[in-house]
Amino acid sequence: MTTHLQRLQQHLHQTRLLGSISSTIYYDQNTSMPAAGAPWRGEQLALLAGQLHTRQTSSEYAELLDAAETELGAEATQEQRRNLQLLQLELKRQRCLDPQLVSAITQAQSRGNAIWQAARARNDFSAFAPALKELIELRRQQASQLASAESIARSPWEILAQPFEPDVSKARLNQLFTPLKRELPVLLERAAARPQSPPSAQLSENSQNKLCAKLLQSWGYNESCCQHARSAHPFSCTLGPQDFRITTRVVPGQPLSAFLATAHEWGHSLYEQGLPRSGDHYFPWPLGDATSMGVHESQSLFWECRVARSKEFAGRWHPHFCAELGSDPWNGSTGFWRSLNPLQPGLIRVEADELSYCLHIVLRFELELALIEQELPVEELPQHWNQRLHELLGIKPANDSEGCLQDIHWAEGLFGYFPSYALGHLISAQLAEAMENALGGDGAIATAISAGQESTLLQWLNQNVYPLGRSVNSEELVEKVSGYPLSADPFLRYLNQKCGSDV
Amino acid sequence: MTTHLQRLQQHLHQTRLLGSISSTIYYDQNTSMPAAGAPWRGEQLALLAGQLHTRQTSSEYAELLDAAETELGAEATQEQRRNLQLLQLELKRQRCLDPQLVSAITQAQSRGNAIWQAARARNDFSAFAPALKELIELRRQQASQLASAESIARSPWEILAQPFEPDVSKARLNQLFTPLKRELPVLLERAAARPQSPPSAQLSENSQNKLCAKLLQSWGYNESCCQHARSAHPFSCTLGPQDFRITTRVVPGQPLSAFLATAHEWGHSLYEQGLPRSGDHYFPWPLGDATSMGVHESQSLFWECRVARSKEFAGRWHPHFCAELGSDPWNGSTGFWRSLNPLQPGLIRVEADELSYCLHIVLRFELELALIEQELPVEELPQHWNQRLHELLGIKPANDSEGCLQDIHWAEGLFGYFPSYALGHLISAQLAEAMENALGGDGAIATAISAGQESTLLQWLNQNVYPLGRSVNSEELVEKVSGYPLSADPFLRYLNQKCGSDV
Repeated sequence: MTTHLQRLQQHLHQTRLLGSISSTIYYDQNTSMPAAGAPWRGEQLALLAGQLHTRQTSSEYAELLDAAETELGAEATQEQRRNLQLLQLELKRQRCLDPQLVSAITQAQSRGNAIWQAARARNDFSAFAPALKELIELRRQQASQLASAESIARSPWEILAQPFEPDVSKARLNQLFTPLKRELPVLLERAAARPQSPPSAQLSENSQNKLCAKLLQSWGYNESCCQHARSAHPFSCTLGPQDFRITTRVVPGQPLSAFLATAHEWGHSLYEQGLPRSGDHYFPWPLGDATSMGVHESQSLFWECRVARSKEFAGRWHPHFCAELGSDPWNGSTGFWRSLNPLQPGLIRVEADELSYCLHIVLRFELELALIEQELPVEELPQHWNQRLHELLGIKPANDSEGCLQDIHWAEGLFGYFPSYALGHLISAQLAEAMENALGGDGAIATAISAGQESTLLQWLNQNVYPLGRSVNSEELVEKVSGYPLSADPFLRYLNQKCGSDV
Repeated sequence: MTTHLQRLQQHLHQTRLLGSISSTIYYDQNTSMPAAGAPWRGEQLALLAGQLHTRQTSSEYAELLDAAETELGAEATQEQRRNLQLLQLELKRQRCLDPQLVSAITQAQSRGNAIWQAARARNDFSAFAPALKELIELRRQQASQLASAESIARSPWEILAQPFEPDVSKARLNQLFTPLKRELPVLLERAAARPQSPPSAQLSENSQNKLCAKLLQSWGYNESCCQHARSAHPFSCTLGPQDFRITTRVVPGQPLSAFLATAHEWGHSLYEQGLPRSGDHYFPWPLGDATSMGVHESQSLFWECRVARSKEFAGRWHPHFCAELGSDPWNGSTGFWRSLNPLQPGLIRVEADELSYCLHIVLRFELELALIEQELPVEELPQHWNQRLHELLGIKPANDSEGCLQDIHWAEGLFGYFPSYALGHLISAQLAEAMENALGGDGAIATAISAGQESTLLQWLNQNVYPLGRSVNSEELVEKVSGYPLSADPFLRYLNQKCGSDV
């Protein structure tokens, strides 16, 4: 006889099939679909989204979940309990939302995106302000409806951040960000005195593709379960338990952009490839999922920053880049390493390096709180943005397009997401220290990279980080692996060393 | 108020969305998916197939169809009547099938395919025979269940052929094939005396891709609604009303294969792109569909054979091929043209040229009839295949792998499909004569090709053939466009001229 638990697993399996169909056509949209296919693709995605929402909120599903819980009773293993708990929480969240609000948010997001595109192109914040106001208001309503699903008291912003970073709080973020606000500007000032990186070289698309393929090969790319394609914006996605895709793109005039993006997206993919896939960690159970956006980002940043931007890696890859170019515009591997690490403040978040990136996040985190919880008038956003950016990074945007209009997140009402990017840096650094200790102490990672033995690093992650899935949240994961609570110290130690190592 | 007709259109719209989602993930499977993704992809496709089947056979849909018919009553336009008629026929067919039989066929197909792959690899027909027997038996049952949906009496084979070639009959095929059986062997004998085509050249993958892209550009490829990718077997598909894909592949040692496959698949796609898309010909209505496999094939064959294998085309493209090679292995454009037209009988259908192709089809048509309707024991298939092939083409296969095990169709129980390939040749030739007359008479097509004016040919097809959609069946289409019933004469005239033009 089929148990309720088995039936629940079948239900989740089918939900995951539908979700992965949606991901597959999204992937096609961004890698293959001709432009004129967009309206029809939009309808296909909306149809699947509707089916998924119905499956995930139906009373049949709710009853199945309850029945499985009752059936297991006291017999439930810790893993089963955690799976059911996470599913119940998600269901509770979905079901306490008014469907009219969900639909209003979807429409406002799509409108917000379109208005933002035009406003950014015309550099006209006032055109975007009403849409942003509406999105803030709708998200506040959403947070208020979601409050009843929370087991502890959370502020509206905290509620909105839960899907990205489970159990995150403002107080904890302030605690983690305070040393960053204090130390990073000092490091930036120190870095300003270092020799400038040489002017950028022109590297053909073909050469960049060759170098990216070489990188993936050396980092365990297996074409039987992976696929690398081109898209306008790099991303990584999982389309089935054995089907992993990453995409990158070549930016004219930026010889290192595709290479670093490949390292970054491959880091995301390695985490997904290493997630547990059997028993209670079976693909469609929550335990088989990534635990948070912050942890996901930590894995991409480890390979992009800690490995690919390291001196040892620069030393190994400098000859390959020179061979493709037929010359050495960097005057040696130190110049090449400097090109990989500009260490100079800039206006644009997605182009920021490790020293200034987290300050861009602090800015957004503070302004989101002001907008969502502290009644900051939307009209005043640009002036606050510019002033605070100047305090944090010492620079001012010439206009709002390179200021508060630069990111897509708010245009889609995505509040609560930004801090995960900064957490990714902190988590990556703390896990890397744990890795270093485990692999033999000071310099062990650098030694492995020098020797082209990144497989040692991957093996450690595959044994100590990836298999945890969602059995722990991000803070628990860090403490479990490193032995102490998440802190900004390892990240700052790492940056201090990086800045100090330049001559 | 929403009318029943509008609700019906919404239903069809959503069905088409689902169908095109399925096509999109099938496309991804064949162009991008890593091999290990196959089992999950199979489950995704099965899930969508189940959803589609439910939508297409539900009582709600049946009632909606009846309600729309009643609502329109005598007011219905001819187009509306035809749409409803075609939908009712399809529904009737789906609903008179026992779901258990449908499921048994699906399973037998998948089993048959696997057994056939192994049997073909080991050249062991006896291993495949039991699976083929089962498929024949299941298809006979299917034909018997489907008989009640037919408005006129049809034999089992004819019933199975209806989905591919609506209204086709054995008598009509015999009538059309008789002159082919008489004339083609004579032409083959004449062609045997012509100068041999020179040995094949090695053309790099990059060069082949360049030439294919150049061909597509010159034939109106528009990247805003088309996408060209690589796959193991070339195919063409439509993923949305403005989203057309074709795939080809480079075969090592065959410099013309990808080029001709591109011409062929692009011909399929041009037909799809030219189908009517508004009013009663709206995308999800039957009238917006291709009318038969034979007509579809006629459009791919027109561009592949009539255009790309013509002397004029060879004259224009010979320099491009030589430029890519840096030499002329064909000793001039006549040699190049001969390479495009081997005109020699071979064992393999998919490699056959215009002279022998239809004889391969005659062989399969006769044997299908014998298996389905005349109690030919499956065990005797190889001996009948070999004997009849020798009568038709004067050659004998060394083993069953290059004989009756070569095609996938029977391995999946696909009976009734093969004749459409031959009909494609006949239809293409008859429509081409009509085109020639309309464009100025004898030699008009050749003149257009010489001048690089294939757009003239496309324009004529876009005005006279493509917009008909499914408003007529294939025979009606041919008669409407050419002024007289489908006949083998234009095809034989065309081949006579082709054979006679060689020196």
